Amino acid sequence: MAGTAKMKLPTPPQGVILFAHGSRDPQWHRPIEAVAERIRTNDPTRVVVCAYLELSQPDLPTAAATLIGQGVQHIRIVPLFLGMGKHAREDLPAITAALRAQHRTTAFELCPAVGENPLLLDTLCTIALQDFSSAAAST
Amino acid sequence: MAGTAKMKLPTPPQGVILFAHGSRDPQWHRPIEAVAERIRTNDPTRVVVCAYLELSQPDLPTAAATLIGQGVQHIRIVPLFLGMGKHAREDLPAITAALRAQHRTTAFELCPAVGENPLLLDTLCTIALQDFSSAAAST
Repeated sequence: MAGTAKMKLPTPPQGVILFAHGSRDPQWHRPIEAVAERIRTNDPTRVVVCAYLELSQPDLPTAAATLIGQGVQHIRIVPLFLGMGKHAREDLPAITAALRAQHRTTAFELCPAVGENPLLLDTLCTIALQDFSSAAAST
Repeated sequence: MAGTAKMKLPTPPQGVILFAHGSRDPQWHRPIEAVAERIRTNDPTRVVVCAYLELSQPDLPTAAATLIGQGVQHIRIVPLFLGMGKHAREDLPAITAALRAQHRTTAFELCPAVGENPLLLDTLCTIALQDFSSAAAST
């Protein structure tokens, strides 16, 4: 509208934390990091980091602090948990509540665990019925 | 072709074992069982059971024996492992080799772990960028 010109401030980058269980085995992280890389490719406006509940680094508070240090003001936490156990149901909301209390000017969006997502369940069903005969599956 | 009529034998049902880590927490299994239910709906010709590496029952040999007892001659094992750790890389091939040695007339097809499947990585990427604002996500 005429006369309402505003100075456009740069949009602060949005952060995404892929939060997974963690493992002592370095190869365990490969798929988690592959998802992070895909997000960076598909949406370069997001700043994506991985974080782990245990056995791996960084933990969630460290990853959040890293993003906040890069000017991120909105952090989406995506729990990459297939099973819906205590980690996804109890531990993660508690960690997120502590993060909100510590970083009051940052918005934390805690997504449902991927194991609750109908899209994931559909994909796992598709994979289970996929024809692997021409792929690298051992038969 | 004329003169080549054969008696058509009934096709034995194909079995699918969804193989996941397992947990003491009964709610943990919910997504695994939801995938099994989706497969049964999408392809009623498959006989689908869940099996677990530890902490939950049945284990893989018990699930395989159940399917074989139902006349299944081909069993596909789908490892529902997101991370690619020792369980997916070493434990599962060893268990499958033992199953093949024990049940010589049954074909066991060991699929790659879902964490290796590009379709799953794409879906996780889509979920991570999904708009949850109108869904049940806590924001």
